[in-house]
Amino acid sequence: MAVISGFPEYLPQARMVENRVLDILRETFELHGFANIATRSLEPLEELSRKGEITKEVYVVRRLHAEEGAADELGLHFDLTVPFARYVLDHAGHLAFPFRRYQIQPNWRGERPQEGRYREFTQADIDIVGQETLGFHHDIEVCLVMLEALGHMHDEVGIPPVLMRINNRKVVQGFYSALGVSDPLAAIQIVDKLPKIGAAAVGEILSEQGVSADQVEKILALASIEARSTDFVDAVRGFGLESDLMEAGLAELVGLFEAVHRRFPDNVVVDLKIARGLDYYTGSVFEVELVGNEGLGTISAGGRYDSLATDGHHTYPGVGISFGVTRVFAPLLSKGVLAASRPVPSAVLVAVDSEETRYQADDVAAALRARDIPCEVSPSAAKYGKQIKVADRRGIPFVWFGGTSGQVKDIRTGEQTDADAGTWSPPVEDLRWSLVHA
Amino acid sequence: MAVISGFPEYLPQARMVENRVLDILRETFELHGFANIATRSLEPLEELSRKGEITKEVYVVRRLHAEEGAADELGLHFDLTVPFARYVLDHAGHLAFPFRRYQIQPNWRGERPQEGRYREFTQADIDIVGQETLGFHHDIEVCLVMLEALGHMHDEVGIPPVLMRINNRKVVQGFYSALGVSDPLAAIQIVDKLPKIGAAAVGEILSEQGVSADQVEKILALASIEARSTDFVDAVRGFGLESDLMEAGLAELVGLFEAVHRRFPDNVVVDLKIARGLDYYTGSVFEVELVGNEGLGTISAGGRYDSLATDGHHTYPGVGISFGVTRVFAPLLSKGVLAASRPVPSAVLVAVDSEETRYQADDVAAALRARDIPCEVSPSAAKYGKQIKVADRRGIPFVWFGGTSGQVKDIRTGEQTDADAGTWSPPVEDLRWSLVHA
Repeated sequence: MAVISGFPEYLPQARMVENRVLDILRETFELHGFANIATRSLEPLEELSRKGEITKEVYVVRRLHAEEGAADELGLHFDLTVPFARYVLDHAGHLAFPFRRYQIQPNWRGERPQEGRYREFTQADIDIVGQETLGFHHDIEVCLVMLEALGHMHDEVGIPPVLMRINNRKVVQGFYSALGVSDPLAAIQIVDKLPKIGAAAVGEILSEQGVSADQVEKILALASIEARSTDFVDAVRGFGLESDLMEAGLAELVGLFEAVHRRFPDNVVVDLKIARGLDYYTGSVFEVELVGNEGLGTISAGGRYDSLATDGHHTYPGVGISFGVTRVFAPLLSKGVLAASRPVPSAVLVAVDSEETRYQADDVAAALRARDIPCEVSPSAAKYGKQIKVADRRGIPFVWFGGTSGQVKDIRTGEQTDADAGTWSPPVEDLRWSLVHA
Repeated sequence: MAVISGFPEYLPQARMVENRVLDILRETFELHGFANIATRSLEPLEELSRKGEITKEVYVVRRLHAEEGAADELGLHFDLTVPFARYVLDHAGHLAFPFRRYQIQPNWRGERPQEGRYREFTQADIDIVGQETLGFHHDIEVCLVMLEALGHMHDEVGIPPVLMRINNRKVVQGFYSALGVSDPLAAIQIVDKLPKIGAAAVGEILSEQGVSADQVEKILALASIEARSTDFVDAVRGFGLESDLMEAGLAELVGLFEAVHRRFPDNVVVDLKIARGLDYYTGSVFEVELVGNEGLGTISAGGRYDSLATDGHHTYPGVGISFGVTRVFAPLLSKGVLAASRPVPSAVLVAVDSEETRYQADDVAAALRARDIPCEVSPSAAKYGKQIKVADRRGIPFVWFGGTSGQVKDIRTGEQTDADAGTWSPPVEDLRWSLVHA
């Protein structure tokens, strides 16, 4: 057994479910006009180490027989945002802006593995990036597209309903500045720890940073505001603080809330404690959790950044949201909570009478495949009873006997009927595997 | 520009073609009942270094802040066979044998980059693995499935026709043994270099290894046999050597040739110089090249191995074949020889009259998407002429004006007609992108 902790790997019947999930994401994103890209797995280390905080988690890669003392130059990417920013700069001359892309790839982080953390994990990201400018309506758009994809996953794969928590950095930053906090960005990073360490601990750290007791009280009061209506505007203004930045943020947050609420009334809440730890967000921020499974943490998150990248000539503002495929599905797939009804695509096993007449079974299979019916030919010309057991062990519902004008048996009911390989089809619910919840 | 040599990366209109190729492979493999698996990217170094020859190309991976002097433990896999062998041993208790799997993933090799060699490259593998035994007909099966996939790629993506060269290690090994060559396996490795270094050089190396002039002559004569019929059997027997192993190999090779030739008469040739360098092949071996593009080298290859893996209790014989997705497509995609007709999935751009009425355009888009028509809403409420230019720059053929009862313009012809978003569809050839050959 060569299991490496933090690197999930699935049986075929679980991988089939993961593939369905990836198809749902892909189809949803493409219906909305997002183009797919794939970036290389490795990036120069200096690209990966720009955000100091993350550096320690990077996996460094070097050739086994690199020269002694040769400098490390490459690392595995730890998210899809850094490679995307580099991709935009590399290819800007060939892209039409606003550039709408989706990307579904593994990431790697050399963290100590723990429950719900993976060292290799797949994320699905959508981002829209402009050159110099980018309309605010794209903030709304990425939220709606991701909620639509999550809705399809709810309907088709049975994940729980989701709740998206939204906020706007401008509200918080404007509020802190108007309050006289000397380093609003540092305060945001501390408040971001609220769900993890609680209000008392956050207040303590803020005090240590020189934030006064009165300021701490108001910061915590602001962070406690949650609303499923635009009432939060009055609550924020109720503090009596004046800030253009805060007002601009409130207008955006109202716009985002109203637009998302119109389409997904049950799935969005304004939550003024949402900050997102990363320092590049400058406006809208969003976090999504699974209702009833909040302990799993944030399964999808993103926000607005005024500058994803800059190349001296141009600045590229963007907005994006990422979905943690592995975070959501690895626990369900590894434990068999979700699985395909059979571990093979085949709907039919074609029985073989003898090795000399195997070609007849091959002809049956070819005729079925010509009409998109997945099937396989029996591995051996054993007694029929044994061949049926082969199908049973693989979860294949039908066994075919005889040539193209033969008979087909539903091995679950035992019913056997005459059938022509050029016209017979399995019932539509048996043609493809279906989902099984343990 | 942060291009890293050997790590190809594509523009969206090229990536779309690559995705189509991956879909063709996946659909073909699944129609034949192969189940998909994905293995982790990293393997313990001792798994990767079993075959000494490859060791030098492995990328070693370690945490950036690993302890000074900590042993390297993990490496990126360099093919899909080694991880698959490990997967079979890890999960044997949960798999039904013969186990038929396909796997499409990137591999990494720390080679010096050169024309046609990549350091990150995607391969698509199918293998069938038995427990203790595996029928010979599976050798035929994997060849037919791969030739079918290559045929679809020829029809749908326009790759050249292929030629599969087949041989059997037993023929060669039995022949060499009967000839009195002391180390037949070593000789096979040398003869494998024939296409690269030529007969004279191969003969010289064999002589240095103690192979006599007469033996060298017969080895080279055997290697020169090529046939598109079963005539090769008489040619081999004409040397007058007697070997049960050779005869067993001839019977298999005839069986493989006849079965493949029946389905693909133009795409298979017996070629007795085909050896495959890897030492684990024990029977059938196959190599595929593109007709007219032989300079690209082997694009697909595989063979039979009597023991993919063994765990002390069981031995797992297998047969498989691998297709080099990146090897074939990177040159065509990077240079734009093959591209999608548009760099976005969208068939329609929905125009926006004003930011205040953007929701009307959103409604149109939602109605189109409900019927699987990929579309996007204009990024800005600019003048119509400017919005048409946005569509033109993105290669989107249709622009929608007005609400759900509006008008749609084919911007290529200028034709504009009344249309209802609940019923209108683009012509089927415009619904999805099509393939463009430069």
